[in-house]
Amino acid sequence: MESEQPHVEDQISLSKYSKRVILETILGRPDGGVGLIGRRIVVGGWVKSSREFRKEPAVQAPEALGPKDVLVDSALASPSHVMPTGTCILAEGILQKPSLQDKEIIELKAEKILHVGLVDQDRYPLSKKRLPLELLRDSTHFRPRTTTVASVMRIRNALTQATNTFFQENRFLYVQVPIITTTDSQGSSEIFQVTTLLAKQKADDQSGTDDFEGIKLEIIKATIKEKSKQIEQLKRSDSNKEAVAAAIQDLKKTTELASQLEAKQKQKSGKHSIQTDKINFSEDFFSCKTYLTVSGRLHLESYASALGNVYSFGPRFHANKFDSKKYLAEMWMVELEMAFSELEDSMECAIDFLKFICKWILENCTEDLKFVSKRVDKLVVDRLQLIVTGPFEKISYTEAVETLKQVTERKFETKVEWGVSLNEEHESYLTDEVYRKPLIIYNHPKELKPFNIRLNDDGKTAAAFDVIVPKVGALIRGSQSEERINMLSTRIKELGLEKKQYEWYLDLRKHGSVRCCGFSFLFDPLVLYATGLNDVRDAVPFPRSFGKANN
Amino acid sequence: MESEQPHVEDQISLSKYSKRVILETILGRPDGGVGLIGRRIVVGGWVKSSREFRKEPAVQAPEALGPKDVLVDSALASPSHVMPTGTCILAEGILQKPSLQDKEIIELKAEKILHVGLVDQDRYPLSKKRLPLELLRDSTHFRPRTTTVASVMRIRNALTQATNTFFQENRFLYVQVPIITTTDSQGSSEIFQVTTLLAKQKADDQSGTDDFEGIKLEIIKATIKEKSKQIEQLKRSDSNKEAVAAAIQDLKKTTELASQLEAKQKQKSGKHSIQTDKINFSEDFFSCKTYLTVSGRLHLESYASALGNVYSFGPRFHANKFDSKKYLAEMWMVELEMAFSELEDSMECAIDFLKFICKWILENCTEDLKFVSKRVDKLVVDRLQLIVTGPFEKISYTEAVETLKQVTERKFETKVEWGVSLNEEHESYLTDEVYRKPLIIYNHPKELKPFNIRLNDDGKTAAAFDVIVPKVGALIRGSQSEERINMLSTRIKELGLEKKQYEWYLDLRKHGSVRCCGFSFLFDPLVLYATGLNDVRDAVPFPRSFGKANN
Repeated sequence: MESEQPHVEDQISLSKYSKRVILETILGRPDGGVGLIGRRIVVGGWVKSSREFRKEPAVQAPEALGPKDVLVDSALASPSHVMPTGTCILAEGILQKPSLQDKEIIELKAEKILHVGLVDQDRYPLSKKRLPLELLRDSTHFRPRTTTVASVMRIRNALTQATNTFFQENRFLYVQVPIITTTDSQGSSEIFQVTTLLAKQKADDQSGTDDFEGIKLEIIKATIKEKSKQIEQLKRSDSNKEAVAAAIQDLKKTTELASQLEAKQKQKSGKHSIQTDKINFSEDFFSCKTYLTVSGRLHLESYASALGNVYSFGPRFHANKFDSKKYLAEMWMVELEMAFSELEDSMECAIDFLKFICKWILENCTEDLKFVSKRVDKLVVDRLQLIVTGPFEKISYTEAVETLKQVTERKFETKVEWGVSLNEEHESYLTDEVYRKPLIIYNHPKELKPFNIRLNDDGKTAAAFDVIVPKVGALIRGSQSEERINMLSTRIKELGLEKKQYEWYLDLRKHGSVRCCGFSFLFDPLVLYATGLNDVRDAVPFPRSFGKANN
Repeated sequence: MESEQPHVEDQISLSKYSKRVILETILGRPDGGVGLIGRRIVVGGWVKSSREFRKEPAVQAPEALGPKDVLVDSALASPSHVMPTGTCILAEGILQKPSLQDKEIIELKAEKILHVGLVDQDRYPLSKKRLPLELLRDSTHFRPRTTTVASVMRIRNALTQATNTFFQENRFLYVQVPIITTTDSQGSSEIFQVTTLLAKQKADDQSGTDDFEGIKLEIIKATIKEKSKQIEQLKRSDSNKEAVAAAIQDLKKTTELASQLEAKQKQKSGKHSIQTDKINFSEDFFSCKTYLTVSGRLHLESYASALGNVYSFGPRFHANKFDSKKYLAEMWMVELEMAFSELEDSMECAIDFLKFICKWILENCTEDLKFVSKRVDKLVVDRLQLIVTGPFEKISYTEAVETLKQVTERKFETKVEWGVSLNEEHESYLTDEVYRKPLIIYNHPKELKPFNIRLNDDGKTAAAFDVIVPKVGALIRGSQSEERINMLSTRIKELGLEKKQYEWYLDLRKHGSVRCCGFSFLFDPLVLYATGLNDVRDAVPFPRSFGKANN
């Protein structure tokens, strides 16, 4: 019976915990699967495109699971059922040579249709071909079915894997810092509160009904402006007609909505704002005010001050009411703290980390990188190489200011002088125009940094650094903590912070204080860097931003 | 010069991004480090214990970084500075044979003290030896410095690593589901709201000042009861006198606090509760009501319905106002969804996953398992082996009920009959007494499961399963989703759920619906299983529970 056993290279891997095959193991073979012709397999996925062929619909199975042609005889399933884009099909059949002169070198002749998930074509938002990413944002639950978003999400997955691998290989312990915290953001950021005090409200009292799916009129108006602009752009570029038509249709709907809302708002019933000075927080779930964390680094220090090197990777929250292509209200961040380390160590770690994860993507995501290079941005691979192979320029904040002051060919919105916070325009000018490589700026004026950053011996600057890369700007913000209790207390007083909140943190300085260094790494903008996308809302599965939380 | 190069086995690994050595690479050698005598190294850590020796303090360096004796000449540092437990020391010196007849076979003769972080002995909560874990809960920021909590946290780290490794090796994509969501808990759990509406309150208007660090009087009173009980237990057991004394001291402080608070409450100023029917949520950050997620499985289904197999690993939130040794308000969970899979596939995946992570711990945490076996629970390794090697028993809910109904030697608080939700007493009786192995109970009455679980052909049961293990009970709850849109709509109506909230989820059924299976895995109770601990508050870095959020 041994002779019936297929050769190892003829093995077909079943997807674990399902009867379907992993298409990659067929299509990824050097022969593209030709050696498997005649074999019986099960494939499953969502129809990407289809056409009729001698009365047999030929269905191209989901790109998300790999491109594959499936030939379905009309006796097996009605063409009107299986042909619409987005239809889910699980089919058993025989691999054969393609019946059509085609790019594909193998197809599946279906013999049994095991499952069909129909599509309501008129309402399915992805029925139209190649919608711009902006329009897909209203369909966060469907957009991973598009080739681009699927590629981005696979690259995103690989980046999380690379992140964990780097820290585990370097003996960092993973610590889950709390998401709900009583320690606020040190005044550096707007924050969300967590409460059960508002929960008694009846379900029918949804004030959101004055809005559309919870979106404010002002925001809808802003969207209208943006969408009009997009349409102009689409018209100017070589976009297909369907996409332009879809965008115009979409704009029309939005405009209608806005006028409906405006009418409603005029007769709006008077709902009150909360008188926040009358709230008794001792009645709240935790018997006190609690917030969503903006950073876990203070908590991580407690673990570093016992276990050495620790890191965390989780969601962080900022309630900032501005629109940004780089920041969201909910973002995943990597944070780490290292005991017995100095600022220079932390910079070195940041560089090693970025090099490691960029190299990982180049090695493990070749197909997806090929795709985004073609579809999104042809410079993606070069940009990853720049980090992997290139040196990082290191300059002090003072040097950065000197360099920027000498710039004459470009006018900055915020004039540069010592003491001013460098913002995106300055940072990207330095990395894109002056140094043309990743850049570390260190030793910022102490006034620009949180209370717990170590004061340098000059008495003016703090031991902090930022890593700036082309395209997305600052990816990492690092610092050495102030280990001297008296300096720390002084800073808390200077900044007028509420000392009680930080008692536990000050405790770490009172008992066995250690020099601690670390950084925060913005995960989501790195996904932009690695995929060429320009807006973080396209790179996060379910983005949350001011006025917008869809599901 | 080559001859001066040490042999490979004589290499000492520096801790990355720090000058100190990794003690494991010295102490973990077959010779315990003896071959390195004479070498100069830097070690850093927190003093665990110390004694004077011919006027030279011998300091035992931090167990968290590995046990190591450091001999410090009093000319280098004042004994009163370096000897207190908890002192942080970074020292350079020479490895030598021990000066004392001791368990250690190597010690460091310090030549330079590079850093000392003093301890205020009177106020340092860990000055006393071996405090019970219950008392350490008030010092979440210090307790990783104890041997037990350090071991637990290293095992916890290994479990996160094992989790990611299992799913990545099995081609699951990691998807970050949203923490802030507009989709509530389907009525199955109390939830937290996220808001910026309460943020305008002044910092000085902290109603928490009526309480002690935000802890309610009732809770303090409950604590007093519990602490009294603990002291009785401590007295009865062989605990050392210091621990008992510490506990009594602690109780005294708590009692004083309670009476102070009681006095204050009598003259408490009248703060109002919020009139929740008057809140205008369209003014909130997201222009609508938003919650902290209780489960990401609905969102994951959207990604499974495009990319195949997906998983998530992140914090989930329940605002349940009861005290539990197994559940917290904030817990990390693993969730996954697999397209084209049936219930049986999901069970198989759950079993493989549990076997994989338990095996991982046995192979990668030998030293820490040895320690917790000695200090916490000698059955830890047997219990892990039980999952790795043992078969899992699979019984239907109906069989489970039949078995429990026949039990005569034990009276259950909740009487068992078909339709009743099996709770902890039933589940642990079945796994601990009847089957004595991990247990899967499947096909529960549909009334006991959420709206979106697939109805079985019998019309009475739903396609769900629970994995129950000895000691901690249910670790995994899995299910197959209802892929039929009409059935799903009927269930939403039957349960009186607000359909609008689930429109996006129903969309997945309207367009290319697929059979989806998955499960939720409670990460924190597994840490109890793998360490022998009994209370999840000791296994989570910064636990959050009703009335308690320390930092």
